[in-house]
Amino acid sequence: MQEQLADLKEKIGVAQDLAYAGAVLNWDQSTYMPNGGAEARGRQMATLSRLAHEHATSAEVGRLLDKLVPWAEQQDPDSDDAALVLVTKRDYDQAVRVPSEFIAELYSHIAKTYTAWTQARPNNDFASVAPLLEKTLDLSRRYAEFFGPSEHIADPLIDLADQGMTVAKIREIFGPLREQLVPLVKTITEQPAADDSCLLQHYPEAEQLAFGESLIREIGYDFERGRQDKTHHPFMTKFSIGDVRITTRFRDNDLSDGLFSTIHETGHAVYELGVNPAYENTPLASGASAGTHESQSRLWENVVGRSRAFWQYAYPKAQAAFPSQLGNVDLETFYRAINKVQRSLVRTDSDEVTYNLHVMIRFDLELALLEGKLAIRDLPEAWHERYRSDLGITAPDDRDGVLQDVHWYGGIIGGSFQGYTLGNILSAQIFDAAVKANPSIPTEISQGQFANLHNWLKSNMYVYGRKYSVPTLIRKVTGQDLSIEPYIRYLRTKYGELYSL
Amino acid sequence: MQEQLADLKEKIGVAQDLAYAGAVLNWDQSTYMPNGGAEARGRQMATLSRLAHEHATSAEVGRLLDKLVPWAEQQDPDSDDAALVLVTKRDYDQAVRVPSEFIAELYSHIAKTYTAWTQARPNNDFASVAPLLEKTLDLSRRYAEFFGPSEHIADPLIDLADQGMTVAKIREIFGPLREQLVPLVKTITEQPAADDSCLLQHYPEAEQLAFGESLIREIGYDFERGRQDKTHHPFMTKFSIGDVRITTRFRDNDLSDGLFSTIHETGHAVYELGVNPAYENTPLASGASAGTHESQSRLWENVVGRSRAFWQYAYPKAQAAFPSQLGNVDLETFYRAINKVQRSLVRTDSDEVTYNLHVMIRFDLELALLEGKLAIRDLPEAWHERYRSDLGITAPDDRDGVLQDVHWYGGIIGGSFQGYTLGNILSAQIFDAAVKANPSIPTEISQGQFANLHNWLKSNMYVYGRKYSVPTLIRKVTGQDLSIEPYIRYLRTKYGELYSL
Repeated sequence: MQEQLADLKEKIGVAQDLAYAGAVLNWDQSTYMPNGGAEARGRQMATLSRLAHEHATSAEVGRLLDKLVPWAEQQDPDSDDAALVLVTKRDYDQAVRVPSEFIAELYSHIAKTYTAWTQARPNNDFASVAPLLEKTLDLSRRYAEFFGPSEHIADPLIDLADQGMTVAKIREIFGPLREQLVPLVKTITEQPAADDSCLLQHYPEAEQLAFGESLIREIGYDFERGRQDKTHHPFMTKFSIGDVRITTRFRDNDLSDGLFSTIHETGHAVYELGVNPAYENTPLASGASAGTHESQSRLWENVVGRSRAFWQYAYPKAQAAFPSQLGNVDLETFYRAINKVQRSLVRTDSDEVTYNLHVMIRFDLELALLEGKLAIRDLPEAWHERYRSDLGITAPDDRDGVLQDVHWYGGIIGGSFQGYTLGNILSAQIFDAAVKANPSIPTEISQGQFANLHNWLKSNMYVYGRKYSVPTLIRKVTGQDLSIEPYIRYLRTKYGELYSL
Repeated sequence: MQEQLADLKEKIGVAQDLAYAGAVLNWDQSTYMPNGGAEARGRQMATLSRLAHEHATSAEVGRLLDKLVPWAEQQDPDSDDAALVLVTKRDYDQAVRVPSEFIAELYSHIAKTYTAWTQARPNNDFASVAPLLEKTLDLSRRYAEFFGPSEHIADPLIDLADQGMTVAKIREIFGPLREQLVPLVKTITEQPAADDSCLLQHYPEAEQLAFGESLIREIGYDFERGRQDKTHHPFMTKFSIGDVRITTRFRDNDLSDGLFSTIHETGHAVYELGVNPAYENTPLASGASAGTHESQSRLWENVVGRSRAFWQYAYPKAQAAFPSQLGNVDLETFYRAINKVQRSLVRTDSDEVTYNLHVMIRFDLELALLEGKLAIRDLPEAWHERYRSDLGITAPDDRDGVLQDVHWYGGIIGGSFQGYTLGNILSAQIFDAAVKANPSIPTEISQGQFANLHNWLKSNMYVYGRKYSVPTLIRKVTGQDLSIEPYIRYLRTKYGELYSL
């Protein structure tokens, strides 16, 4: 079997090389590419996607899997080689359902749409992207249909992002969570709002960049194996286990936007950097799902990065970096400012308590679009309507409305958002498990020591990559199935103390 | 035939997409990639090269060419479609001789060697790259041998870079040129050296960058279709006709290094940007050869960029950009400084008169290596020896000796250098033709007007890309075959005036 296994690794390695090359082209498109490159870049990315797909679904890969899967199923479930075969088989079974030509058409369309969005958003011009989005919706439906009949048309798209999840299961999770969140938001927002004016001063971009990078070095982001660049919409991307990059954006009149987005993307990056190097260039070499990935970005951004313990350590550094802005602001004021709860318009800037309401709006709109109950032309108004009903506010235009998030303009419609809330839920659950194993972690954080936490996450979660199915991984890391209880407890404890509830 | 033609375009378009993707990965490696990415990047670039090669040499492409070539040979020689078929056929015939696996091995090795060189040069550590270079030499010989017996082993490698050229033909050109240059260098360097102290002051990098970019915008480099980044060794690279980038490096104690390298790479870039957009993503969509390419980088860098006329226009701008450094320096002093002739160590910094002697040293050493008359271990000393005999100076170590140029560390050994001198020769010959057609060009240059020159070059040369063979293109552009006479006349006139010869 070793010969076939080596053969499989080589063949899927080519598909991985092509996918990573596509990621480099995508990163370049988002960071440095001049406008004139857009048309050809779309075509090039489409070609790479199509070829990656062809190589991953080739007849030889199919034949090798036919031989290797029965063998793998008899191995120890902890065997890396067996996991490699079975994960490849799962990817293969999903990929063969989708024709390569469709993949090329989809990615070519997405590249064009992304470029249009980068213009449309600053111009508040939803009309210019609406026809593109119509096609995206059509392509997303066709994509879902390749997987055959399902209870809900979004189910296969959700499963691609969050293995094992369906619309029904997510509703079972989101329903009770929403029941807890809505009254919590109400209680908190009836109190006087926290004063966040210390954040809303002039913070020069270069100084924000330097301060953010100093913090993420401490957390453990290795700049020998990564880098940070500016882009429209922050993201993490991976070209190999030795090259995992993040991007960010800054507002010069708001410290928190750039800072927490930098820590957020760092959470994604340290997850990818922690994958077992032996998995390099195989399907095992990545985070397990959208939700598990988001659990790490949110763990570092919020559970650590917005904790009082973290700023007991980091606030003197922030004051040293920004003496004129923060020199006369005390830690408690800063801590309350970065945890201000408010009914706001922008998901990525929103606080932990309201955040999931933003996600649920998008999740529901996405389903309505896919179900055909909502037309693209009615999407801007539907967006505003949901913000009115769920958050009690309305965006003045589409820039902070339907044009806000890159997802529908840089990918398919479907399965794009549920991972954020699954990640929030898991962030608390996983942090609890880490602290249970190492009770000194909270104290260490207040001393600027992140090694124990980082290493525990690495050796209990990151290192496995996609080796285990998502439900298995969650049980391995936390000892339980996914549960909203630790997250609710986390929010109630933190915000109960902040707002004397 | 139109159906087969469309089919051919599509198939070779995929090979082009892969090659351009490889160029993006290479640009990223040279500009922004963290060290940790090097190993995987080498493998990814090797995969892209191998697949590009496989697609360009596929059996389908062969069958389509079998049908299309007889048709193309009967068309008007000015037909774009016929040229596309015949150029593709030429590339195909060359490419099928080289196995894809060899291409992958070669590019993987080159990526590793390039990374090692970026460390070895600052550390003056030739020993660390010598074993890699031994393998490069072996691979270069094997590469040449795929093309079958030739008069000289370097001939096929030279033909790949400069179509129609051979060692024998180049010696026929270089011999008489050398006979003219050696006494010219001797006469000039016996006179008192020009004072270039105005260039050797502190010039902050950011200001150099801004000034260089302001000049190349005037020349016609379109930043909507390109950009400039920093790298170890300046280069131009193309990802599509709408995305042609340059890289540069600066020394903060020398204005001329960064400035003229910026204009040099701009010359390469405007050539590529001027190719007929209808050729996008076909083998026609690039400059015709190493020599014709270099003719444009040197035309803009030297014939224009180091001319008195150019600085009559640009010098007040330079003084405004660098008032403390140049405010009290007159134009004539600056003009003499940027045209100082001296026996120096570094090719890219050398003046126009000695430059070709640097090239001839490398050309001869390359041939000696390929012929087996010179071993890699003896290369550093052979380098020093030739600098002693040809230029009367010796580098203190290998940094400005054998480790100086990227070429052997970022490509094969063979065919790498002759294009620089062919380009110098052509730069004067082509500029002469432009001025013959538009006698007002020199006056326009002194007024900062480059449109007539740029447009003449574009419509008489750039637009054709690889449509015509190199000798045909040279005849179309200049009305003659390649000739050293205009170049000798150019040097004698310019330096005769400067040194009152």
